[in-house]
Amino acid sequence: MSNNRAVTYQGPMKVAVQDIAYPTFELQDGPGVNPLNVGRKVPHGAILKVVTTNICGSDQHMVRGRTTAPEGLVLGHEITGEVIETGPGVEFIQVGDICSVPFNIACGRCKNCKEGKTGICLNVNPDRPGSAYGYVDMGGWVGGQAEYVLVPYADWNLLKFPDRDQALEKILDLTMLSDIFPTGYHGAYTAGTTTGSTVYVAGAGPVGLAAAVSAQLLGAAVVIVGDLNEDRLAKARSIGCETVDVSKGDPKDQIEQILGVPEVDCAVDAVGFEARGHGKDASHEAPATVLNSIMDLTAAGGGLGIPGLYVTGDPGAVDDAAKIGSLSIRLGLGWAKSLSFTTGQCPVMKYHRGLMNAILHDKVKIGDAVNATVIGLDQAPKGYAEFDSGVARKYVIDPHNTTGKVSPN
Amino acid sequence: MSNNRAVTYQGPMKVAVQDIAYPTFELQDGPGVNPLNVGRKVPHGAILKVVTTNICGSDQHMVRGRTTAPEGLVLGHEITGEVIETGPGVEFIQVGDICSVPFNIACGRCKNCKEGKTGICLNVNPDRPGSAYGYVDMGGWVGGQAEYVLVPYADWNLLKFPDRDQALEKILDLTMLSDIFPTGYHGAYTAGTTTGSTVYVAGAGPVGLAAAVSAQLLGAAVVIVGDLNEDRLAKARSIGCETVDVSKGDPKDQIEQILGVPEVDCAVDAVGFEARGHGKDASHEAPATVLNSIMDLTAAGGGLGIPGLYVTGDPGAVDDAAKIGSLSIRLGLGWAKSLSFTTGQCPVMKYHRGLMNAILHDKVKIGDAVNATVIGLDQAPKGYAEFDSGVARKYVIDPHNTTGKVSPN
Amino acid sequence: MSNNRAVTYQGPMKVAVQDIAYPTFELQDGPGVNPLNVGRKVPHGAILKVVTTNICGSDQHMVRGRTTAPEGLVLGHEITGEVIETGPGVEFIQVGDICSVPFNIACGRCKNCKEGKTGICLNVNPDRPGSAYGYVDMGGWVGGQAEYVLVPYADWNLLKFPDRDQALEKILDLTMLSDIFPTGYHGAYTAGTTTGSTVYVAGAGPVGLAAAVSAQLLGAAVVIVGDLNEDRLAKARSIGCETVDVSKGDPKDQIEQILGVPEVDCAVDAVGFEARGHGKDASHEAPATVLNSIMDLTAAGGGLGIPGLYVTGDPGAVDDAAKIGSLSIRLGLGWAKSLSFTTGQCPVMKYHRGLMNAILHDKVKIGDAVNATVIGLDQAPKGYAEFDSGVARKYVIDPHNTTGKVSPN
Amino acid sequence: MSNNRAVTYQGPMKVAVQDIAYPTFELQDGPGVNPLNVGRKVPHGAILKVVTTNICGSDQHMVRGRTTAPEGLVLGHEITGEVIETGPGVEFIQVGDICSVPFNIACGRCKNCKEGKTGICLNVNPDRPGSAYGYVDMGGWVGGQAEYVLVPYADWNLLKFPDRDQALEKILDLTMLSDIFPTGYHGAYTAGTTTGSTVYVAGAGPVGLAAAVSAQLLGAAVVIVGDLNEDRLAKARSIGCETVDVSKGDPKDQIEQILGVPEVDCAVDAVGFEARGHGKDASHEAPATVLNSIMDLTAAGGGLGIPGLYVTGDPGAVDDAAKIGSLSIRLGLGWAKSLSFTTGQCPVMKYHRGLMNAILHDKVKIGDAVNATVIGLDQAPKGYAEFDSGVARKYVIDPHNTTGKVSPN
Repeated sequence: MSNNRAVTYQGPMKVAVQDIAYPTFELQDGPGVNPLNVGRKVPHGAILKVVTTNICGSDQHMVRGRTTAPEGLVLGHEITGEVIETGPGVEFIQVGDICSVPFNIACGRCKNCKEGKTGICLNVNPDRPGSAYGYVDMGGWVGGQAEYVLVPYADWNLLKFPDRDQALEKILDLTMLSDIFPTGYHGAYTAGTTTGSTVYVAGAGPVGLAAAVSAQLLGAAVVIVGDLNEDRLAKARSIGCETVDVSKGDPKDQIEQILGVPEVDCAVDAVGFEARGHGKDASHEAPATVLNSIMDLTAAGGGLGIPGLYVTGDPGAVDDAAKIGSLSIRLGLGWAKSLSFTTGQCPVMKYHRGLMNAILHDKVKIGDAVNATVIGLDQAPKGYAEFDSGVARKYVIDPHNTTGKVSPN
Repeated sequence: MSNNRAVTYQGPMKVAVQDIAYPTFELQDGPGVNPLNVGRKVPHGAILKVVTTNICGSDQHMVRGRTTAPEGLVLGHEITGEVIETGPGVEFIQVGDICSVPFNIACGRCKNCKEGKTGICLNVNPDRPGSAYGYVDMGGWVGGQAEYVLVPYADWNLLKFPDRDQALEKILDLTMLSDIFPTGYHGAYTAGTTTGSTVYVAGAGPVGLAAAVSAQLLGAAVVIVGDLNEDRLAKARSIGCETVDVSKGDPKDQIEQILGVPEVDCAVDAVGFEARGHGKDASHEAPATVLNSIMDLTAAGGGLGIPGLYVTGDPGAVDDAAKIGSLSIRLGLGWAKSLSFTTGQCPVMKYHRGLMNAILHDKVKIGDAVNATVIGLDQAPKGYAEFDSGVARKYVIDPHNTTGKVSPN
Repeated sequence: MSNNRAVTYQGPMKVAVQDIAYPTFELQDGPGVNPLNVGRKVPHGAILKVVTTNICGSDQHMVRGRTTAPEGLVLGHEITGEVIETGPGVEFIQVGDICSVPFNIACGRCKNCKEGKTGICLNVNPDRPGSAYGYVDMGGWVGGQAEYVLVPYADWNLLKFPDRDQALEKILDLTMLSDIFPTGYHGAYTAGTTTGSTVYVAGAGPVGLAAAVSAQLLGAAVVIVGDLNEDRLAKARSIGCETVDVSKGDPKDQIEQILGVPEVDCAVDAVGFEARGHGKDASHEAPATVLNSIMDLTAAGGGLGIPGLYVTGDPGAVDDAAKIGSLSIRLGLGWAKSLSFTTGQCPVMKYHRGLMNAILHDKVKIGDAVNATVIGLDQAPKGYAEFDSGVARKYVIDPHNTTGKVSPN
Repeated sequence: MSNNRAVTYQGPMKVAVQDIAYPTFELQDGPGVNPLNVGRKVPHGAILKVVTTNICGSDQHMVRGRTTAPEGLVLGHEITGEVIETGPGVEFIQVGDICSVPFNIACGRCKNCKEGKTGICLNVNPDRPGSAYGYVDMGGWVGGQAEYVLVPYADWNLLKFPDRDQALEKILDLTMLSDIFPTGYHGAYTAGTTTGSTVYVAGAGPVGLAAAVSAQLLGAAVVIVGDLNEDRLAKARSIGCETVDVSKGDPKDQIEQILGVPEVDCAVDAVGFEARGHGKDASHEAPATVLNSIMDLTAAGGGLGIPGLYVTGDPGAVDDAAKIGSLSIRLGLGWAKSLSFTTGQCPVMKYHRGLMNAILHDKVKIGDAVNATVIGLDQAPKGYAEFDSGVARKYVIDPHNTTGKVSPN
């Protein structure tokens, strides 16, 4: 009999809530666990009772069948929880701490971790640098859309909230620290956003909105968000952004109407490889559209932050090149404009403490900005389906109804 | 009767030495001059008697007919000269000064210049940010492979050498400050080269060798240069670099033999859009080869400096996409490795003073490293042809035989 | 008969409004003009009709007789104006432009200007790097608390506001771009303020409040302002800051009450050399108090931004050491905590455009924050006296009543 | 009966070699051990057989009686060793690894460590941020001038050399990675040294020479070293530096003779609080001399790196202010020149890997540069005495004669 339940991938467009093993301080075999990680000892780990765990747009890549994720994979890498047990190697984190878990698992001992590059830790994924909970090809660490989850290298990875009551009060903001808030911030920051910048954010999903909020925090004078989903654009406007409906033509023209010039100082790609075309091409997938668009609409010398996910393999891609992650990029244009590009997973640890402080001192309301919507564990399949339909919501699973906000149905 | 002679483009694979107008403090009409720049007043300019002016790999793109350069265009953007006349608006530069001329023309008054982004000055090219002497679509400023040349915004653009005799003594090093030394340095610097780095430089032409020397100056532990021209690789070895012959297979394997691991910390693309394939594909052009290769062989978290030229239009390209500067880039791979990319013209002014000091204090011998070879103005056509054949030389035109090193034939 | 009137220094605690010469494109002799600058040609200059010109705390150092300023010196380095005539060397700035004038005069041609270090331009002050309008030992450029003023190197120095009507509407914010807003921002920025920081600003005068606002713009979680003037502290609280009354004891204790810990991440010295002691020592001058205090209350590894003025000579100082600018600094403490320090004039040009954009897009209300108070030219002596008494106001002189806000008396 | 022997402090000018306890995975009580650290469990630690351990100038502060170090304190924080036992919490470091030990002990789990600020770790010294082996008031971790030593948080702290034989071959270079090479590099780096810089290093002791070598590695055009010890200056000249004899007058004048201008771009204070005066004041201690001197001789806008130690308490100081670490600093001068200052312990981990790579690939010979001189453990007292006399040597204690270079007497 199990003492743990979790959301699992069951094939394209199917997720289910299942009994899974209760975590121990050793990584067990299971769907998607890297064979070289099976049996790995985790004395430095902590077991968390999950307080909140969010559904992420990158989970959807798996759920849509756009990856090689195996059936039974336990989903979830956006985790906030209460420490209920610590391994013998844990020294500073204590039982009772409420903590945010960065989605990128990191050892805190390798060259990259020592340089703050926790998104490409060398010691947690036997296949390549970088790892995450509940994600295909990321080492096999069990996902956190569950009642309980194991966090390795707990002293290194966990960000403790200073006060328990305050944490629970602001939990719908703090739950965004595990991924989308730092990820959006990373996009805006690496794009070079600073006081007075004009910024374009491609994509009004949760990461896009988080990038927009981050651009505001970084001092942007104007933040313009582009999407083709009117509900999401309305959400962007509600937080003080200008918007561009990319289904209605070239973003440059719409930017010119807003700013007086057809270009911005910096831009963020918060869409990634499942992009659709713009204007009359908006109905079908065109994976390089966003990148080529932001090169076109960013002023010479600008920066492009690219937190949107691009993959090395995409079985469902529109053409053979895209199936291996090769896209037709207007590099000549980018070069002529002296643009710079920053790609890859956000190293959450670089940003989460500062963003936590901004939340705790009421400088930002990220939960509202992305429309955080609490659901129970059993409502996760429905949440996945609705999120996939494009609703302007960020679903926050609360497996134990700690927030008291889970509705009965 | 003219008092000036210059090297001009005369159609694919043809250059000639012609009489041209002596410069005045107003930009005259002529082949390639932007109509909006015709008649532009240049009271802030200086007229230089050219001491040395080098043939650049990017000149070859024009000479090979890979651009829309018009016949009669005066070539040359790598200029060092003696000031012989100054306009009424020049205050600090004086007649008799020996100066290096950054290839990128900049006004010193616009937003980008104030930020040090002199490669994308907003006021010198009516078509787009950024300009250069003697280059197609760059505003029409007359090239400097000539006896005399006009330099606008002289107080801003010119780098004065502190001592005339010392300057002439080290002229074969100092002449590289106008373009390739800063350009190579920009590649190595933006790639993130620092003390102890391992660096791969794609391309052993003059810019590649300058990048290699720069990586050494920046403290690299190992610099590996890749090319398929054995003479150029031999030159690279002679300055303390390791080498990879890309015609003999995947650079990664060869890198592993050198370093023990198949990857480097950072990489420089000193080739650009006229790249050829690697290994068995080395015989034909494959414009994205170098970029895809350096993404493959750079460690996760690394930086890529891309000073090699990529263009927005290439009539001679291998396919329709490449003709508009669109290349098939393995972006998914780059993203998975969290790579960052810096593209565009080097802002020469950012680096030339420091590099000058390194030369003047004997910290670097860039002239030797690139095999500076002095020729007379009339030998320029022959120099272009030989450079195009792949000789391991950097041709330095000395129109007045100031160096005394021009051989009679 | 004169066509210009200006505020001049007339000895300790005396300022007067006088007729002075109308500016020409040549620097004339006069009180405080460096002999080596007399007769200097300024074809690159622009004559501005002054729209607003603010009284600065650093003007007060002169007016209090704490410097060697000569009688008759024309005061004023915080200038905003309309261009009414340009010299023959001006190319981009045009008659009718409304512009902000950075208080630091810079040539835009020297090594330091090319590096963006416009606060230490090498070509405008014969005595040392760095210059300013209307300031003792700063080269002798005529001050701008006048009806008309000459701005040299106009294309380089002037920041044009994009729209005339918008500029006049927001003039009480924009007028702060010439000095205190960038200066405060420089303090907060060089102290390392970023998203989530806790920041202490010593001094609630206009620069301190500007630093506080800037810290907020930079994303600070908590900004704490210390002073011993209750009116100024009340002003700080009105813009969302916490406050510390340094006359009531050690700031550390009060900080602990606010934050729970007795230290902040970074600190700004917005007081400078005329500091008074803290706690029971608050009644007398103690020039190193602020610096020693911020070293004490900043966490290990923190940064200290020091825009507050320290001088090389102070005839009115409390002791012989201070008279030559030598202060007793607890360097051992700072070293043990690995602190870093940034001193000197703010290079206004580095920040003013971004701050202007933040103002124009309603991201910040700096005029309200510092309590901008419009007065006429003839009211300047009264304004100086009131400012010296410690009122929580920033006086903005409007010589032509362009704002329509000058009251009759 | 003991299995370990070590160099201990026995009172002013006295050190002795004594039997001490063999290390265990728990911090035992002993001279100088912080009571709050007594009994601390160290399962994450490794026991090293010491290969080399150097005498440091900062050890001399203790040995001269300039601190509150208790008798019996085990000295030594510059340690290189072979791992012979690991605690149960060690995962990546293995028995047999030859490693460099950063002198600053760090936990790898706190906020500061996560930001790379390992010199101010929050978890290893109960009194304040920052810790070191064998040093007064630094937590009480047992010194490493011993046969065996315990290194806590071994996976985090230790830098493993890739190849054992290569490591032993280059051990006289690699042994400098534990402190003085990174410390000197930190000074040069934080001073802003880059390609083409002119750099002044105050002090030709081992840290000063390491700073000079580092400035060369960073690309400096000219490195000038100042001291009043002719042997040490001769050593500086032997590695390609210019020198200034500060006993012969103002360094500025001598710099002018070398460079043609009386100032450098950046400067390093490699002396600290036991500085003596310059020129005719060279015979007596004047603790602020070096700092005031480098402010004077650095160009406006320059940076000052201050790795030289300044302390919060110095019972042997020349005056009451200096006894509490307060020095009379010409801050007004520094401010007028817009200088910036970086103080504090070098965070060794930030630099040691890159410097190791530079050593292993023969880019730098730091052992030769500082005149590494191998002695046995029993020769340590003599080494301390000679070093104190000012010989131009860096003493490297080899307790087991692993190098085979220990001479019999």
